[in-house]
Amino acid sequence: MTARSAGPTDEFGFPIIPAPVDSSERKRRTIIDAALAEFLREGYAAASVDAITARSGVSKATIYKHFGNKERLFLAAVGSFLPSSYAELEPGISGLADAPDLRAALITLAVDWARLLMHPQVLSLRRLVIGEIDRFPQLGRLWYRVTYDLNNGPLVDTFAELHRRGALRVPDLPLAVQQLVAATVGVPLLIRTFNPDAEFDDAELTRQMTSGVDLFLAGYAAR
Amino acid sequence: MTARSAGPTDEFGFPIIPAPVDSSERKRRTIIDAALAEFLREGYAAASVDAITARSGVSKATIYKHFGNKERLFLAAVGSFLPSSYAELEPGISGLADAPDLRAALITLAVDWARLLMHPQVLSLRRLVIGEIDRFPQLGRLWYRVTYDLNNGPLVDTFAELHRRGALRVPDLPLAVQQLVAATVGVPLLIRTFNPDAEFDDAELTRQMTSGVDLFLAGYAAR
Repeated sequence: MTARSAGPTDEFGFPIIPAPVDSSERKRRTIIDAALAEFLREGYAAASVDAITARSGVSKATIYKHFGNKERLFLAAVGSFLPSSYAELEPGISGLADAPDLRAALITLAVDWARLLMHPQVLSLRRLVIGEIDRFPQLGRLWYRVTYDLNNGPLVDTFAELHRRGALRVPDLPLAVQQLVAATVGVPLLIRTFNPDAEFDDAELTRQMTSGVDLFLAGYAAR
Repeated sequence: MTARSAGPTDEFGFPIIPAPVDSSERKRRTIIDAALAEFLREGYAAASVDAITARSGVSKATIYKHFGNKERLFLAAVGSFLPSSYAELEPGISGLADAPDLRAALITLAVDWARLLMHPQVLSLRRLVIGEIDRFPQLGRLWYRVTYDLNNGPLVDTFAELHRRGALRVPDLPLAVQQLVAATVGVPLLIRTFNPDAEFDDAELTRQMTSGVDLFLAGYAAR
């Protein structure tokens, strides 16, 4: 997704995941990659299993055998895409509790997180998911749960530890994490959600994330 | 939208705006109301001008005469809905600069704002708009500009005044306003965007908004 993903990427910028040995799993991966590309290009309603068949080179019968229907294929595609994207943030989160400079570590994490969320394909998939939630509520719950479990959950544990050690004073851990996310990555994300052309260069993004982290620490750093 | 909207509302909870004397304007209003109802029920792609014709009781020729095509009708519907909803927040924003208790006034504004954004029909229209932005970018720009002009813009002016008077210390006014919005209404909005069934009772919403306002003031209240 970012410069740190050194591996090969497909036409949509998604990392190409090396095929596992098992051919059924390899086919499943091929179908999911083709489905993601088709959903991103056409939107959910207009995407067709025929086009996914053509893109993947896998027979339609195999697609239905693996996924049953278009809805389940969409869920599988979103559910497989998110963890592989968010995996990039894991080292930044797990290193927070013992970072020599908590402020600097939070800023680095926020900048990486914002860059990931601002990737045009992540934004497009997020918009696509939001647009389908009224007709397809399990998709919104999946997106929220995956992003929450992968990021907010570990941050809650980290802040609990920092609270115990006296570095932070956080009376409501989940709410404080939500506020940190909102006041840092939430700011450019809201603008870019509605205005895909809004430009944020690295300097501006760093400035915004620094300001958001400082606001968070003004409220929650132990005095 | 909330208990303060004393006027009559339609089946979707939108205020029924008294018909102006001019019959052309009245027809325009009737078409827009029918279009909003149809778009919310069917989504953008599946909504049909035939159904809007049937809902409104206005001839298809008249609809095309007023709006040209479905896209322009959608833009007009969204553009007319937002200002009438956000008008409820105007007194809360304009009263901030001279409020005897700034913290209490900010909490009241945030709670009113959150209730407005959490209204199921506002959430649905917002999701619908986000889902169409990749195919229809002017819609996202319209939504962002209208909400920004109606709310963030006046808040920037208010905080500039409070900064001049020494009540706040705000080095970057637009960013501080975005952070306030993110850390208050942004928190439940993000959860509800993805999980329409998430419940927030008034006590929980007030608790979240109070915590967000306190975070904002920890960072920006003059000491």
